[in-house]
Amino acid sequence: MEFRKDLDKRPSYDVVEKLWRIKINANECNLNLPPLVEERVMSRFSSVAFNRYPNEEYDSLRDQIAKNFGVYREQIVIGAGSSEIIEKIFYIFGGNSNNKIVYPTPSFSMYKIYAQAAECDSIPFKLNEDFSLDIQKFIETVNDSHANLAVVCNPNNPTGNGMKIEQIKILAENIKCPLLIDEAYIEFYGETASGLLKDFPNLMIARTFSKAYGLAGARVGYLITSKEIAAMVERAYMPYHMNVLSIVTADIVYQMRSEFVPRIQMMIAERKRMASQLKKLPGFKVFPSVTNFLLVKYPFAKELNRRFEERGIGVRSFGNAPGLENCLRISMGMREENDIWFDVAETFSDEISMQHPELDTEGMDL
Amino acid sequence: MEFRKDLDKRPSYDVVEKLWRIKINANECNLNLPPLVEERVMSRFSSVAFNRYPNEEYDSLRDQIAKNFGVYREQIVIGAGSSEIIEKIFYIFGGNSNNKIVYPTPSFSMYKIYAQAAECDSIPFKLNEDFSLDIQKFIETVNDSHANLAVVCNPNNPTGNGMKIEQIKILAENIKCPLLIDEAYIEFYGETASGLLKDFPNLMIARTFSKAYGLAGARVGYLITSKEIAAMVERAYMPYHMNVLSIVTADIVYQMRSEFVPRIQMMIAERKRMASQLKKLPGFKVFPSVTNFLLVKYPFAKELNRRFEERGIGVRSFGNAPGLENCLRISMGMREENDIWFDVAETFSDEISMQHPELDTEGMDL
Repeated sequence: MEFRKDLDKRPSYDVVEKLWRIKINANECNLNLPPLVEERVMSRFSSVAFNRYPNEEYDSLRDQIAKNFGVYREQIVIGAGSSEIIEKIFYIFGGNSNNKIVYPTPSFSMYKIYAQAAECDSIPFKLNEDFSLDIQKFIETVNDSHANLAVVCNPNNPTGNGMKIEQIKILAENIKCPLLIDEAYIEFYGETASGLLKDFPNLMIARTFSKAYGLAGARVGYLITSKEIAAMVERAYMPYHMNVLSIVTADIVYQMRSEFVPRIQMMIAERKRMASQLKKLPGFKVFPSVTNFLLVKYPFAKELNRRFEERGIGVRSFGNAPGLENCLRISMGMREENDIWFDVAETFSDEISMQHPELDTEGMDL
Repeated sequence: MEFRKDLDKRPSYDVVEKLWRIKINANECNLNLPPLVEERVMSRFSSVAFNRYPNEEYDSLRDQIAKNFGVYREQIVIGAGSSEIIEKIFYIFGGNSNNKIVYPTPSFSMYKIYAQAAECDSIPFKLNEDFSLDIQKFIETVNDSHANLAVVCNPNNPTGNGMKIEQIKILAENIKCPLLIDEAYIEFYGETASGLLKDFPNLMIARTFSKAYGLAGARVGYLITSKEIAAMVERAYMPYHMNVLSIVTADIVYQMRSEFVPRIQMMIAERKRMASQLKKLPGFKVFPSVTNFLLVKYPFAKELNRRFEERGIGVRSFGNAPGLENCLRISMGMREENDIWFDVAETFSDEISMQHPELDTEGMDL
């Protein structure tokens, strides 16, 4: 049987999930909906017309988001997670077999897959040792390659660091093609590029309900951009790509987003607490993070990951991914969960340190 | 700004919806979930982990469907409506700029749009006057054009007629490329091609929960095919394209599908009742239907459609679509709703007949 050219050669995003006792491998929120929100969502479900194609629900959510950002409804596009939005953005600027998309690496591993799905070339741009972006070189790479799209994840996943708004502004001012800022973790950071939208019609900001708002299961994200780009993303969608249950859930979550502030603050506090604890373990390098996860480099990361697995703890190990050798990404769970995995890490570290007294504590300067 | 080549030239599927008093324009089920099913769905929602990416829920639904059809889990693919499944099937056999997809016309108008999204050529194959398919000529067209995919909607939308399983078998035996049977309305008909799957690894059957099972809002469909094709469709998907709420809803609906039998029977009875009533109106040609809708041809269809609109009744008018001139597609609503729209049609017909005594009653021979 003959399939689309090279489809079988595409990398797949393999996530092998187990029923972890402590699941901290996907940067999810480890709490289900806040009770007040859940009550409203369940009550709304009981009035949903399951039998009708989604219709005005879509615009209600768009209106709410548009109002919050002070933009027009036509500048907001809803998608099945920011995943679907990013996929479609790659699609609308891709194709033509030699179109190019530039994005930093290491970053969200799906960018490569979206580029292949859009049948265009990926130009991965290497981040500095400390995972910061060389702004000038990035701009040169984008412009010199006549790229059709540049993508920056801010704050960056899986490294955890964030760029300042002034840096994003320099990118937007100098990059000659459309620029997508993937703000999947922005609620833990705050430095959103949304204020730049009015000056840069080439700018796109992708957001998700999957992380800070704990709706990974509902698959809802949104895009804020110019009317022109938004219309092309809508055109790339097939009709009725969104379902009514997810839309009404996101609609209520967005209305009640102040209910999520305490848990966002708790995640940030936990991240700080765990970073300072981890730094005290010999040989652990903890990268600065402005997100709900920590990237940790440790010469015995693979062995530690196995230990975690044995204890029913799922973290994200990057194996030999370029730039992420010996790195683990640990999502912040609840305080009690964090105490448990830390305890496992500490015991493991004690055992290793006895055999490897050369391991230092890198300490607080990171 | 430069977008993907020809994206702006693609036709869009424009559905302008109003808040109809009687909505019979989209072949939806005009009843919400059966009470017993709704109860189970709501209770399941209260245990959904909104905060977790969907995972084992997907396989639970696949297992259930696989068991019902006596096939392996790996032969079942779930999608956001059969829409997403058909889109991806076109995609995996499309591309390469000269790949070809053959489908009858008039049929589901989205096929043309899916073909364009997959960047390949559409070869529409004209149905006979009575909307039957010339099997031999269709096979020749597919094979002579070296098509990469052939598609047949059975029963056909918007014409309402169905093919016999023997005819589908002749197609499967003789068509040299993969063959997709779109069985969106099969529950109203019963002549499924699923029994042919074991003999024809090139065969695909797309199903939806949107019509007979009244889940248009949840966006769930499924594909039954060979493991090889199923694996390629999965590869064309982006991760987490399905949301957990829709999956668990479909899972329960499928478990409880016997609850839907009475309403399916009611739709069929209503279709028969309305067909025989409409046939008595002078100038109305009612095409035979094995679905939950009727296709009606009437010289004053546009005027009748306007009258329907004035009365808050939404039916589907095809304007000047080839082969569907002066046709209206009317979904079967509840008995009371059907009485209301028929009353409007009858009054309108009486008025027209006075001015146009030449209009005949075609009667029962159709």
